[in-house]
Amino acid sequence: MLRLNIANAMEEVIGEKGLAEKEIEALRDVLSKAVLQVKQRNWEELAFLDLPEQDISDVKEIGVKIKKDSEYFLLLGIGGSALGPRSIIEALSPFHNLKKTPKVFIYDNVDPITLHSIFDIVDLKKTTVNVVTKSGSTAETVASFMILWEMMEKVLGEATGEHFVATTDPHKGNLREIVRQKGLLSLSIPPGVVGRYSVLSPVGLLLAEVIGVDSREILKGAADIRDRVMEEEPWKNPALLMAAILYLYGQNYGRTIDVLMPYADGLRRFSEWFCQLWAESLGKLGLGLTPYPSVGTTDQHSQLQLWMEGPEDKVLLFLRIEDYGEDIKIPFVFQDMEGLSYLSGHLLSELIKAEEESTELALAKAGRPSVTVILPRIDAYYMGQLFMFFEIVTVLTGFLIGINPFNQPGVEEGKNFTYGMMGKKGFEHKRQEVEASRERKTCWEL
Amino acid sequence: MLRLNIANAMEEVIGEKGLAEKEIEALRDVLSKAVLQVKQRNWEELAFLDLPEQDISDVKEIGVKIKKDSEYFLLLGIGGSALGPRSIIEALSPFHNLKKTPKVFIYDNVDPITLHSIFDIVDLKKTTVNVVTKSGSTAETVASFMILWEMMEKVLGEATGEHFVATTDPHKGNLREIVRQKGLLSLSIPPGVVGRYSVLSPVGLLLAEVIGVDSREILKGAADIRDRVMEEEPWKNPALLMAAILYLYGQNYGRTIDVLMPYADGLRRFSEWFCQLWAESLGKLGLGLTPYPSVGTTDQHSQLQLWMEGPEDKVLLFLRIEDYGEDIKIPFVFQDMEGLSYLSGHLLSELIKAEEESTELALAKAGRPSVTVILPRIDAYYMGQLFMFFEIVTVLTGFLIGINPFNQPGVEEGKNFTYGMMGKKGFEHKRQEVEASRERKTCWEL
Repeated sequence: MLRLNIANAMEEVIGEKGLAEKEIEALRDVLSKAVLQVKQRNWEELAFLDLPEQDISDVKEIGVKIKKDSEYFLLLGIGGSALGPRSIIEALSPFHNLKKTPKVFIYDNVDPITLHSIFDIVDLKKTTVNVVTKSGSTAETVASFMILWEMMEKVLGEATGEHFVATTDPHKGNLREIVRQKGLLSLSIPPGVVGRYSVLSPVGLLLAEVIGVDSREILKGAADIRDRVMEEEPWKNPALLMAAILYLYGQNYGRTIDVLMPYADGLRRFSEWFCQLWAESLGKLGLGLTPYPSVGTTDQHSQLQLWMEGPEDKVLLFLRIEDYGEDIKIPFVFQDMEGLSYLSGHLLSELIKAEEESTELALAKAGRPSVTVILPRIDAYYMGQLFMFFEIVTVLTGFLIGINPFNQPGVEEGKNFTYGMMGKKGFEHKRQEVEASRERKTCWEL
Repeated sequence: MLRLNIANAMEEVIGEKGLAEKEIEALRDVLSKAVLQVKQRNWEELAFLDLPEQDISDVKEIGVKIKKDSEYFLLLGIGGSALGPRSIIEALSPFHNLKKTPKVFIYDNVDPITLHSIFDIVDLKKTTVNVVTKSGSTAETVASFMILWEMMEKVLGEATGEHFVATTDPHKGNLREIVRQKGLLSLSIPPGVVGRYSVLSPVGLLLAEVIGVDSREILKGAADIRDRVMEEEPWKNPALLMAAILYLYGQNYGRTIDVLMPYADGLRRFSEWFCQLWAESLGKLGLGLTPYPSVGTTDQHSQLQLWMEGPEDKVLLFLRIEDYGEDIKIPFVFQDMEGLSYLSGHLLSELIKAEEESTELALAKAGRPSVTVILPRIDAYYMGQLFMFFEIVTVLTGFLIGINPFNQPGVEEGKNFTYGMMGKKGFEHKRQEVEASRERKTCWEL
């Protein structure tokens, strides 16, 4: 099971700038209520908690078919529809496209340069396209879907539909309608599951199967950690304790930036997945905490200076890996150089772990708080634990802040302007507003 | 030339939460002094400004040799030694390893999983290793160098040295000494050029040449923008104006997070390069601004909610691309669906630009400031402009804040603990300190 160490967040260890136990004690009632809301599934959107028990026979079956038939797998989706799948492939099949088939591309933008690059590489006849949008009308995703559909039709004709899999709402939306009309293979995102909480639905699981990862393992990990963190007693529940600490640091100490720093290249994308989850779930009503994506040791040479000596506005979330698997020993070469020879004989994993511990300690000595999540190793089972753990921490933190962690009302205005500019009916006034804004802006350019 | 539009930062456009012209006027003397410091090269570390005039014949020659002889190019380096090169390859040769040779790997960590993956792919006999460390003793870089040296020696014997190129200080350090002993090819990082300001030195330029990018173009862009931003009059100098705006928002408005959001997948890594530059340069003495890496349109579905409705602690830096090159039209398919058909006939570049403008406007309407850097297109010349422009903005902002933008004193403590744990002579007490800290921590784990 993943574990949490909070020593470096507490005043007993880091001094007066640290949290006191009694601050958490004072929050007992609120904490207990937050857990109860989760346990009792008080919100429809808590449906993600029950994903470990879903029937995944369709996912398995379609995954097997794609693995057998396709040399390329192109996922079209954006936000949660892309970040979850991408964090799975980067963690569980590093450098996938240089080593395995089907080669996987995740197109989560409308950048024509990227799409041209993908077209240069893939053979459309040997490609399966997975369109992922719960609403069925996400502009970026449907734009790329339309392009792919026409291009595939040119080379495949009648067989076009066989090369598409739609992952969308079980009943509603344009994409579901297209599934019906064209007889496409499809998978369903359960109604209560919001995009950024969807990685454990077919959104993430189909890709897992396509790259040879057993999605049952992911779900098993998710179930185990979920059942571990339903305790109302904060000192026994790592998710609740983490939520309490991050909430209190934001609320009472002005530490409103939470930096996630896994010590593993493969979890770089997991950091980005977490950032969407944390940012969209908590940032509303003028409140919220800003997530920051990071990777160790790399960002010790990029961000650490700011964390050590910059404004006191951050909490570090370290993600320590206990077992990196097959190791590499640093050899006894260049022994006449003191700047190198001290490393000889050590394992690479010793060095990366020493750096993680050193960074924790250096921050603690400077009175800068951190918490550490300890992950036994990076595999499907523990990725499931990570996803579910951080989802639950996010929901609990949202309840502590007192906001709805499942909506994202702030993104509508930008969408409406885009609709206006693209000529969607009913949004003509939005187009005019954009045009008016341009005139105001010209004199400020240099 | 790249341009700056500051309309969405000013109160005339975004209302009372915006900056007033007079706030910039009040800063005139300080601004002018900051530019003078730069123009007069008052700091030795401003040497990066003169990199456009360096002699690059060695870089070109070694680049040609590697392109001819090698199927794999492995760069070992961390921080500025990796982020600059990586932003060049991602911007100028997207999906490089699936399309071109030599295949390029940048190993900027000590994660054994990553190194094993690289070994699975490369053929060491056909590999050139570029070791990049100015000091010659960066722990991560020399650890991987030692491993590679021994492995190459096993397959290449006497010829090992011919497969290495060292990029380091011209005179000092362990790596320079090894160059002398083993007769390695080498390139020099000029003494005054600090790691995070080194992308326009051989650190970035060798990789550019290896992937077929003419480094003269990069340097020409850098020179042109440098000469464009030496004006002391803020209203005529985009770098100075940008520095002033970000400084004032940080100082007077509590907007201490600067989000860089290029609307191009290829500039994702450029965002990360900027983040190191901004974080390490400015974060010290309890001061500084936190950079945030982002990409449009993608992060509209990840971060935008937080920027629109979260705490008012951010300024957005949009990077708009005017010409994406070869375009793609969204076809007239699925015309019976209103959720899709409005997109038909538009170019993909129209959609991405509309989204960029929409996001700017939505934020401006909510009183949330942004500035926009307008880039004609993504090529070597304009990458040179981007690098130099942001380097100068960073230095100017550092001078306004009143800190030294070239040092990073905060990272030493963590390094010393690592030395202790790795058994380096003279750091035994640091090891003891780590061990003592472990005992304190155990009771806080769950």
